[in-house]
Amino acid sequence: MELTLDGDVVRAGYEARERFYDSRGYGKVRNGDIDLAPVEAAHLLYRGDIESIDGMDFRAFLGSAAVSEVAFAVYKDLRDRGFYLTPAREGWVDDAAGTDFVVYPRGKGPWDNEVAYRVRVVGERDTVGATGLGNCVLAVVDEESEVTYLDTERRDVAGTSDAVVPTTEGELLEERVVCWEPPAELYEQAFYGQRLDDEGAVQLSLVEAAYLAREGLLTVEGGAAAVVERGREVEGDRFDRRLAVYAALRGSGVAPKTGFKFGADFRTYADVESAENLGHSELLVRVLPAGHRFEPRDLALDVRLAHGVRKTMMFALTADSGGEGTDSDSIEWIAVERLTP
Amino acid sequence: MELTLDGDVVRAGYEARERFYDSRGYGKVRNGDIDLAPVEAAHLLYRGDIESIDGMDFRAFLGSAAVSEVAFAVYKDLRDRGFYLTPAREGWVDDAAGTDFVVYPRGKGPWDNEVAYRVRVVGERDTVGATGLGNCVLAVVDEESEVTYLDTERRDVAGTSDAVVPTTEGELLEERVVCWEPPAELYEQAFYGQRLDDEGAVQLSLVEAAYLAREGLLTVEGGAAAVVERGREVEGDRFDRRLAVYAALRGSGVAPKTGFKFGADFRTYADVESAENLGHSELLVRVLPAGHRFEPRDLALDVRLAHGVRKTMMFALTADSGGEGTDSDSIEWIAVERLTP
Repeated sequence: MELTLDGDVVRAGYEARERFYDSRGYGKVRNGDIDLAPVEAAHLLYRGDIESIDGMDFRAFLGSAAVSEVAFAVYKDLRDRGFYLTPAREGWVDDAAGTDFVVYPRGKGPWDNEVAYRVRVVGERDTVGATGLGNCVLAVVDEESEVTYLDTERRDVAGTSDAVVPTTEGELLEERVVCWEPPAELYEQAFYGQRLDDEGAVQLSLVEAAYLAREGLLTVEGGAAAVVERGREVEGDRFDRRLAVYAALRGSGVAPKTGFKFGADFRTYADVESAENLGHSELLVRVLPAGHRFEPRDLALDVRLAHGVRKTMMFALTADSGGEGTDSDSIEWIAVERLTP
Repeated sequence: MELTLDGDVVRAGYEARERFYDSRGYGKVRNGDIDLAPVEAAHLLYRGDIESIDGMDFRAFLGSAAVSEVAFAVYKDLRDRGFYLTPAREGWVDDAAGTDFVVYPRGKGPWDNEVAYRVRVVGERDTVGATGLGNCVLAVVDEESEVTYLDTERRDVAGTSDAVVPTTEGELLEERVVCWEPPAELYEQAFYGQRLDDEGAVQLSLVEAAYLAREGLLTVEGGAAAVVERGREVEGDRFDRRLAVYAALRGSGVAPKTGFKFGADFRTYADVESAENLGHSELLVRVLPAGHRFEPRDLALDVRLAHGVRKTMMFALTADSGGEGTDSDSIEWIAVERLTP
């Protein structure tokens, strides 16, 4: 079968519709015939189901401007995995925006009304805007044409870590605050800080101390302002973003601790009853400004690490409130996990 | 015992020498007496072995400018782990440069002539120059005062992956080169590229193609220059750095493949006999310009991930050759691994 390209669509007749759409889910039906997107036509060429498009064989068509190698790599990979899928063009699928392919559950096709994944295709060298993520699967094509799937989802954070802490006194040192005579609840129930030794003094990080001071639970010379100021001195704006996310996590009943060993801002415990008897921490949280654009490689690194330690990678996007600091109420939470379709 | 600070040294007499140096390895002997560094004196205060320094108790001394909290956290951690150690001051130890503490093997002390680790102390918010690493252990103190140890070592790369490949022809597409009729050796023995399907065409990454073209093993329209130009278009200077490291790895008998799934530049196979029968890849390689300064958090992320997948994290520092591209011969290799002292 030889077909022709009409603008950005390959048009084919009733016979092609029977062979490609009805039995294998390629293309979009139009007046009883079918339209094929170039990436679909390329796949049919590749399989030998059609011979040429405008006289081009697979090799010539892939080398032409009509079809993107990156989109082809993903399309082929999903077909190889046994899925039917439709290019997300306006009029071809619902909610096409931000999506490249609509993938149906295995055994289903465009004639069913079910969607397994909304896939967005990116090359390893493209950057991806953080706010555009959530409710789509990123299919990243690396330089060797392998595809990595990352499922992105908007998700709320919630837990039951809400132990009550009496007010305590702290001393601001260089980059931490020491509570020399803390109430036992501070560390033992609420899991703030680290003990300097097996008992007695507790060291708080600047972000913990700033949060507690703002909540009125820590008195320190100069008040919360002095701690925040020190935080900004040593971390810049990042301190405000981290403090906003820390406060939002605590406000949701989740206990955040440093994620340093995992290269993240925080790891979190949803149900702390005591520091002695901690469960597994569930999330790794990386704090980013809402305008952040990811390098797919950095995303792959974070998600791979989180997976390896049985945690979920969560990105907390903070909006600049325009005034003092960063707003804890407007944080967007995006969970990203590896997916094997 | 009450002692006094004299400049940046706490001086103590014969009795202190017996109690602290002879039996527990604190300080430096001077004319039969001992000098203590402030961090050592702080530890003795903390333990209650001395009562005060210039009238200050532990709390006041730690809050003073005389002693760094970060250095104290590492000193205490190593003492808690059962080590004797000496602050690396000029005249106190050999080769003090770039080191904060010289740590002796367990059961040994400053009177023996053995060194277990040369430790460099950094705070989580400090940056660390890449070229200064190698042959030292970084002790990173995070915001919650926990210490993470990273062993850094200069190390050469070597392997036996040196299959001979006949010259082949490729076609430059957007961000890859396709060899439509490659010799079997290209992929199967030498492990260049990825098959488009189970057999037949092989897709090369731009860095693989540029290397092969420079070696005279790949003919492509416009030659190696066209591939390098495309690489620079899509990656900028980074492409030259990656190509230099790729060439150095291949030149050392190691087969590099993309490290994308691990967030790195390359993963490497030291002893490839065939693509069908690959061993475990040993290294993750991240390519950096020699002037790079690490954020300790990024270093922790890379090293943790590599550890989790049973590989060694290797940083390849490239020097700008000043002329065309980057020099493959002047790459510095630094392996970084987690250490539990």
